[in-house]
Amino acid sequence: MTSRISRVDVTPVAFADPPLLNVVGVHQPWALRAIVEVRTDDGLVGLGETYADEAHLARLGAVAAALPGHDPFDLHELHRLVAEVLGRETGGAGASFGGMLDVASAVPTVESPFEVACLDVIGRATGRPVSDLLGGAVRDRVPFSGYLFYRWAAHPGGAEDPWGAALDPDAVVAQARRMVDGWGFGSLKLKGGVLPPEQECAAIEALRDAFPGVPLRLDPNGAWTPETSVAVARRLTGVVEYLEDPTPGIDGMAYVAARTEVPLATNMCVIAFEHLPPAIAADAVQIVLSDHHLWGGLRASALLGGIAQTFGLGLSMHSNSHLGVSLAAMVHLAAATPGLTYACDTHYPWKTQDVVAPGVLAFEGGAVAVPTGPGLGVELDRDLLGVLHEQYLTCGVRRREDTVYMRTVQPDFVANTARW
Amino acid sequence: MTSRISRVDVTPVAFADPPLLNVVGVHQPWALRAIVEVRTDDGLVGLGETYADEAHLARLGAVAAALPGHDPFDLHELHRLVAEVLGRETGGAGASFGGMLDVASAVPTVESPFEVACLDVIGRATGRPVSDLLGGAVRDRVPFSGYLFYRWAAHPGGAEDPWGAALDPDAVVAQARRMVDGWGFGSLKLKGGVLPPEQECAAIEALRDAFPGVPLRLDPNGAWTPETSVAVARRLTGVVEYLEDPTPGIDGMAYVAARTEVPLATNMCVIAFEHLPPAIAADAVQIVLSDHHLWGGLRASALLGGIAQTFGLGLSMHSNSHLGVSLAAMVHLAAATPGLTYACDTHYPWKTQDVVAPGVLAFEGGAVAVPTGPGLGVELDRDLLGVLHEQYLTCGVRRREDTVYMRTVQPDFVANTARW
Ligand SMILES: [Mg+2]
Ligand SMILES: [Mg+2]
Repeated sequence: MTSRISRVDVTPVAFADPPLLNVVGVHQPWALRAIVEVRTDDGLVGLGETYADEAHLARLGAVAAALPGHDPFDLHELHRLVAEVLGRETGGAGASFGGMLDVASAVPTVESPFEVACLDVIGRATGRPVSDLLGGAVRDRVPFSGYLFYRWAAHPGGAEDPWGAALDPDAVVAQARRMVDGWGFGSLKLKGGVLPPEQECAAIEALRDAFPGVPLRLDPNGAWTPETSVAVARRLTGVVEYLEDPTPGIDGMAYVAARTEVPLATNMCVIAFEHLPPAIAADAVQIVLSDHHLWGGLRASALLGGIAQTFGLGLSMHSNSHLGVSLAAMVHLAAATPGLTYACDTHYPWKTQDVVAPGVLAFEGGAVAVPTGPGLGVELDRDLLGVLHEQYLTCGVRRREDTVYMRTVQPDFVANTARW
Repeated sequence: MTSRISRVDVTPVAFADPPLLNVVGVHQPWALRAIVEVRTDDGLVGLGETYADEAHLARLGAVAAALPGHDPFDLHELHRLVAEVLGRETGGAGASFGGMLDVASAVPTVESPFEVACLDVIGRATGRPVSDLLGGAVRDRVPFSGYLFYRWAAHPGGAEDPWGAALDPDAVVAQARRMVDGWGFGSLKLKGGVLPPEQECAAIEALRDAFPGVPLRLDPNGAWTPETSVAVARRLTGVVEYLEDPTPGIDGMAYVAARTEVPLATNMCVIAFEHLPPAIAADAVQIVLSDHHLWGGLRASALLGGIAQTFGLGLSMHSNSHLGVSLAAMVHLAAATPGLTYACDTHYPWKTQDVVAPGVLAFEGGAVAVPTGPGLGVELDRDLLGVLHEQYLTCGVRRREDTVYMRTVQPDFVANTARW
């Protein structure tokens, strides 16, 4: 078992994405992802998945070219190599994803898909699921929350999908019904930051009435001032299990946290290890949403889980639009994270295409059974990969630009950040 | 690779230990350790080593009896099982080691040798050194500091060893010379808390003069008041790389830390994960000494390393009297811990017997090369194990009692904790 990495492929793909609204605009018709394949000289292939904004792709390509000859078990060396390849220029567009987040260094984000792929290789080499490489699964099924969005019925000029528009409480409840009926979710999250908080509170209250006892979350992605956040928290006390990023920044979150009993969650003001000390010192958040794509991979996310346990923080999991390789990685990580205290987020139901062979990642009762095969337990369907790569080549989208796309419909749109 | 644990043996051993002095008394003539062997149904054997106080042995035995049938890869399950076996009674004598430390729960300490043994099994099953299972070695040699002690020439009624007595600066320098000549150590630590601080400072200054440029540490194990600690820190500024546990408790350490530029290290006030939040909030320590025996194993210690990096804490490594299985585990852990910022402690040169076959763990230039064989890379010598087990059976020592033993020589002795 002294295999070496022999070749690494990074394949950008695009898949159809509905017009889901958020604080900075609306999802473009195509969501981009990159599929990483790490091959070894003894014939193993490990998979990873990450963002595919073009600046990120350039960095992925540089690392992919440097990896052959390295030992897939040596993950500390992978980290060193990524930092070396990226050099001093680790910020900029390649470290900014979805127009909402910005990190000081892209190293963890670039490292992540290669780390996942190496763990997939190690799992295949040792005949063990990735969850075993993270200390073992403490749960054999990982619960997810149904992820509700305000949305249009269709992209401008596009065909309607079966979901329909959702811009008021009744439509949000109908969307939730479809989510619960189809996937069995036992908790629900509403992406807010789209309408005035009064209307979003009303939607949450309608969900409470329609789904009594089902845990609810509201995530306006920092659309509110600290004062508004306190008022919303007061209104939704006992209604939501947590409020996610009501207002931007650690200071604002700390101001709100000091004035409500509603736990505050974040995937915006704590998105890298350097944010933990100030956030903990300020008691700014009670729940951190991990995301292995952003935090540097599965082992780094396990470290985040250990830190959360040590400091008495709750832990949930964030999701961007993603495909099956990411879902498998998320499920293994969640399964092997004892401190995970909430159902994970996923955009999975919103997509209609994938790159993995079907059959492994089925939602039942809102949960996904942890794959038990070696590695991640999923296989690429090369025909599907080809289809989605072709879509990438022809779709014209090269980076996520929710605000730019929104302005094609509403030219005067500005992001709702701290608007209300 | 679906092997299961088939049998677990816990063998208490005793080895001759010199009369090394410390804040609570003096080392007894015999140091106790327990050697854990985890066997699998496919013929693998993994090794662990831990304390062997009788209350601890009883708990180890109960876990050993419960382990057969379990999967050696499932380390989260091991943690759960240890907690279940120990039940509610996890404190008391079994959670107190060496008369100086007390932890709220013995679970991590009982878990540790089994976790190390399982990692040894996993390494042997996958053909990989344990350092690879922790993310890969970031250094191929692990530096240790020479561990100096005030000591008597011999145990009462016992034969003198080649080291001789050390109770003044000249003798400490002579001891250091022997350590450096024999093992090549590039840094030196003096165990203090034995003589008034004026004399211990003089010993450190003598070491500085005799070994210019060699990093020095002084560890009185909480023998001083906060005020004395501040005065000592003032005197030794620029002379020591850190002061270790000058005074007891997080509050006392914080008082000292606020009044000196000398970094404070601890293996006394931060010895479990629950101590980290208050210590970090109070900025009580700048360096934590990890110890996989106490913190719950190698993966838990890697978590401690990640927390230290995240919060800007330095990291060193603590040692009790130990044998080669522990040294191998310490070396693999240190090799795979990027955030390790100081040479590790070890009592290894003070012992004259071992249970591992010689040849792997050689000190050269004060460092030990990371074993590259599968697992820990060391093998038990069953004849040596038999000799040291026989010594355990006949030596009469059943727990570490430095104070009790000291009183056989000096009946009015009381521990020097916060004495000066
Ligand atoms: Mg969010
Ligand atoms: Mg100490």
